[in-house]
Amino acid sequence: MAEYSTSALNKVVRGPKRASYDVGTINTILDDAFLCHVGYVYKNQAIVIPMAYARKDDKIYLHGSLKNRMMLSLLEAGEASISVTHLDGLVLARSAFHHSANYRSVNVFGKVKKVEDPEEKMKALEYILNHMVPGHWDNVRQPNEKEFKGTLVLEINIETASAKIRAEGVNDEPGDLDLPIWAGVIPIKQVAFDAISDDDLQKDIKVPNAVLNYVTNNKK
Amino acid sequence: MAEYSTSALNKVVRGPKRASYDVGTINTILDDAFLCHVGYVYKNQAIVIPMAYARKDDKIYLHGSLKNRMMLSLLEAGEASISVTHLDGLVLARSAFHHSANYRSVNVFGKVKKVEDPEEKMKALEYILNHMVPGHWDNVRQPNEKEFKGTLVLEINIETASAKIRAEGVNDEPGDLDLPIWAGVIPIKQVAFDAISDDDLQKDIKVPNAVLNYVTNNKK
Repeated sequence: MAEYSTSALNKVVRGPKRASYDVGTINTILDDAFLCHVGYVYKNQAIVIPMAYARKDDKIYLHGSLKNRMMLSLLEAGEASISVTHLDGLVLARSAFHHSANYRSVNVFGKVKKVEDPEEKMKALEYILNHMVPGHWDNVRQPNEKEFKGTLVLEINIETASAKIRAEGVNDEPGDLDLPIWAGVIPIKQVAFDAISDDDLQKDIKVPNAVLNYVTNNKK
Repeated sequence: MAEYSTSALNKVVRGPKRASYDVGTINTILDDAFLCHVGYVYKNQAIVIPMAYARKDDKIYLHGSLKNRMMLSLLEAGEASISVTHLDGLVLARSAFHHSANYRSVNVFGKVKKVEDPEEKMKALEYILNHMVPGHWDNVRQPNEKEFKGTLVLEINIETASAKIRAEGVNDEPGDLDLPIWAGVIPIKQVAFDAISDDDLQKDIKVPNAVLNYVTNNKK
C-alpha cells in the first residue's frame, strides 16, 4: 500500500504508535471532514485560519477572495501545511494524567500554486462544492464571469503527510485499576440535521437528493 | 463591554461585518470547544497541531510532554496563536458562489511562558481537565510526582483576539431568487453520546454526575 515518506516535517515523534503514513488512510480522513485549519507565517508568527477545501488525487484545493491575506501569503511562501481533525471521543481515565481523546488527524505539506487554467479552476470549484455536499454542484447556478474572476483558487500538491489516530479505550496505569474510580469513553460525533429550506424558495422546489443523502449519511 | 483592540494581527479584513472583538463573545466561543489548533513556525513554515486546552480569565493553558516539539517551539518564539472553530451549518445557496458555512471561530494571540510554580501548574492541569468535562477533576486520581514533573504546561496570556461568526441563512444575488433552484441550510452540531464504561471497572462504580451532565448538555 502506498505510503508517504517521512522527514522531520511530517514524522510523528510524540506517540509514534498512533501514526500512519498510508495514503488511503490519510485520504479517507481528509475526505470525511469539511473544515481544515491552514497555517501561514505573518511577521514571523504562525496564524491559523479555518477553511473549506477539497481533495482530488494528491491535490488539496482552497478558494477565497483575490485579496485573502492568508492565501496570498501561502502563494508567496510557495509552501503550505494544513491540519484536519475529527474529534471522536473523550477518554476519561481513572487518573488525570491518562485523560485523552479519540481522534483522527492529518497534517499535509506541499507546494502551492495558483490555479490559472480556467477549466482546471472551474473543476477545482466543483470539487470544493461537492466536498461539502457530494453531487450538489450540478444542482446550482454555476459561477458567472465576474464571480469566477473574483475567486482565487490555490492548489496544494501533497508532497508529504501524516495521520495520527487514537481509537481505543482507557489506558490507565495497572496499579490504578483497583481504584474505586469510574473510567470510560464519551463518544463524540459531528452530525447533520434536516435541511431548513430558504423562505424565498420558488413554489414546488423540493430538497435535492444530494442534500437529502448528505443529511441521511451524517445523521446521528 | 470590554473589547480587544485591533491591529494588523487580529483585525478581520475579509467579511468585517462578521467580526467581533468583544471579550465575552470570544470567551464563550473558547469555552464551548474542546480542541484548538495551534500554529507554530518550523523551518520558516507554519505547522498546525490540534490540542486540548483551557481558558481561565485572559489565559489559555496547553499541556504536553516535556519534549513536545510544538510546545518547545512556542516557548522559544515567546508568542503563540491559536484558532478555535465551531462548524454550525452548511449554507447551500442557489449559486455556487454564495455557498458558505455557519460557524463561530476565534483567533487568539499572546505571549507564552512555561508555568513553573507547582501550585499554578496543578491548577492549570485542573482547568484543562475541567474544560473537557466540567467538574470531573475531583473524581479522578490526581497527578503523582512523576506524572507532574513529566508534563510541560504553557500559559498564553491573551493580548489580542478576534471572533468571526456567521449565523444566518442564504445570501443569494437578488437576481437569482427567481431561479427554480433549492437553497437552504443544513444545521451541523458536535454531539456527545452516552458514556461507555471501561470493562475493568471495580464493582458498583457508577458513572459520575459530571459525566452524566456533560452528555446531557451535549446531546442532540
